[in-house]
Amino acid sequence: MDKIAIIGLGLIGTSLGLAIRQAMGRDVEVVGTDLEPGNASTAKKMGAIDHDERTIAGAVQGANIVILATPILAMRDLMEFLVPYLAEGTVVTDVGSTKKDVVAWGEELLPAGVSFVGGHPMAGKESTGPKDADAGLLKGAVYGVCPAPSATEDATKSIVALIQAIGAKPYFVDPAEHDSYVGAVSHLPFLLSVSLMNTITKSPGWREMSRLASTGFRDISRLASGDPVMHRDIAVTNRDAVVYWLDEIIKNLHGLRNLVKDDQEGLEKALIDAWEGRARWLINRDNDETLVGEGVKSSDQFMGMILGDTVAKKFKEMGDEGTEDPTRYRKS
Amino acid sequence: MDKIAIIGLGLIGTSLGLAIRQAMGRDVEVVGTDLEPGNASTAKKMGAIDHDERTIAGAVQGANIVILATPILAMRDLMEFLVPYLAEGTVVTDVGSTKKDVVAWGEELLPAGVSFVGGHPMAGKESTGPKDADAGLLKGAVYGVCPAPSATEDATKSIVALIQAIGAKPYFVDPAEHDSYVGAVSHLPFLLSVSLMNTITKSPGWREMSRLASTGFRDISRLASGDPVMHRDIAVTNRDAVVYWLDEIIKNLHGLRNLVKDDQEGLEKALIDAWEGRARWLINRDNDETLVGEGVKSSDQFMGMILGDTVAKKFKEMGDEGTEDPTRYRKS
Repeated sequence: MDKIAIIGLGLIGTSLGLAIRQAMGRDVEVVGTDLEPGNASTAKKMGAIDHDERTIAGAVQGANIVILATPILAMRDLMEFLVPYLAEGTVVTDVGSTKKDVVAWGEELLPAGVSFVGGHPMAGKESTGPKDADAGLLKGAVYGVCPAPSATEDATKSIVALIQAIGAKPYFVDPAEHDSYVGAVSHLPFLLSVSLMNTITKSPGWREMSRLASTGFRDISRLASGDPVMHRDIAVTNRDAVVYWLDEIIKNLHGLRNLVKDDQEGLEKALIDAWEGRARWLINRDNDETLVGEGVKSSDQFMGMILGDTVAKKFKEMGDEGTEDPTRYRKS
Repeated sequence: MDKIAIIGLGLIGTSLGLAIRQAMGRDVEVVGTDLEPGNASTAKKMGAIDHDERTIAGAVQGANIVILATPILAMRDLMEFLVPYLAEGTVVTDVGSTKKDVVAWGEELLPAGVSFVGGHPMAGKESTGPKDADAGLLKGAVYGVCPAPSATEDATKSIVALIQAIGAKPYFVDPAEHDSYVGAVSHLPFLLSVSLMNTITKSPGWREMSRLASTGFRDISRLASGDPVMHRDIAVTNRDAVVYWLDEIIKNLHGLRNLVKDDQEGLEKALIDAWEGRARWLINRDNDETLVGEGVKSSDQFMGMILGDTVAKKFKEMGDEGTEDPTRYRKS
């Protein structure tokens, strides 16, 4: 019987366990271990693992696949530690949010005969423990795949098969490209959320202000509730891309500030650009099931479908007419 | 029978109509009008208004309460237009997201005998038309109340009664304070969302990147799908506060960028600060039902209740131990 070992039973490790056991049932034995014994017993009670192992050595013994689901900076030490315990032919993968360093460690540190195939399920929640784990979290999620240079074809195939079995979508991507992309679409949003919280809560008016904070604030600040250690590790292992994107958004915010200050028309154009950018993203996302298509160009018809006719029409009007005339309310 | 007129049947105007008719049933007649006849007929079909009026003059005739639910810059013209049609004793209110200018216009433009009591329901969605209107949107929402200086006590009471009837929570606030507060908790988050979209979509890698954009990106970019005209008006009527808060967050992002670049410990501290700030906000929000209490100081017990014991414990450990040691994984 195949054996899969999960090291680290937080939100993603436990969700993976649940998804694997649901998909593969009794064909596979799933074992797990966590530094915090409470996490392992929670994961076991939830049915995410068949056995909780006290030691990492015990967990990986005889495992065909070993999944590292710890904070990223712990993975390097973990790989060094694992060396004597991994059998020839074992495939090691991870679920970390950055890939360049992790894949390099896998290539450098793991013994010959052991393949490393990096992975990154694009799914998450702001909570961190096993308690909120959910097999459905991974269903339909894009799942980045980055085989180390020396990984065998069979090793890569076994990870792709695992990803497909749990209903996620494998997406092959170069580790450096991956990190630059997620720097923009994942790490930058997280840091914006952090910056918003830290900027506002330091204000003397925060206590009064916070009472007026509504769903918009709740959503934009949500990511700031993410695990600080996990995100520290992400930023540290993706420093260049994160700094680049922070510099870019600071420039953009400067520009936006100047538009608010004295360019009403330019401001409206910037808001329409953002509106349109997101509309196109939603449309393409919903038409990009296979992840291989060319995407769909936005059209009035698609906009109407996804966004509702009123908004699509308004958008079209704006494009056609430029600045809206507030005095038009007089006409009625 | 009392008559309430709603001018502007977008998301909020229509949601208000639904909530008022659900709460007051046949005791009140609700009429509405919109520049776009399709909006008025949608609102009528949804049961948000008893009658759709073709003209603003017809809608406000004999109304006890007139609710302005248009973009903010349209309100000034609207008030001037309304002057000859408002009977003595009519109360005019609005639902705009800024209050200083609107309350000043109400005070200056409306005739003697007509009271203006500004209002701001702290609720919304990124969609704008009546189609997504929902009475539940306003239930439990904080609802800012800003009477103009010359508004009568009865006028203010009638608006407070309306707010309470629909299950929202009246919150008296000075218009200038209101604008400064929402500049931080509402307009700044919106502009961050806009800036994120505009920064990333301009990148040559956007098409590839967008495939890796997940729930975090979706949530942080959500506000950018808000109505551009509505938000242009908000920024223009709250220029000073918005510019102030943009300057503040730019400073904070600069600091964060430098921490990412070369201060791992400082970065972790900033992430913990944000995590803690949001945890306290969630705790206080959930314990601030009356909007008059002193708020609740966070405690391990409360944190555990709201955030789950694992996270609360982790937080506590971090506070106690400082930087986490990634090599502790070796201990097992």
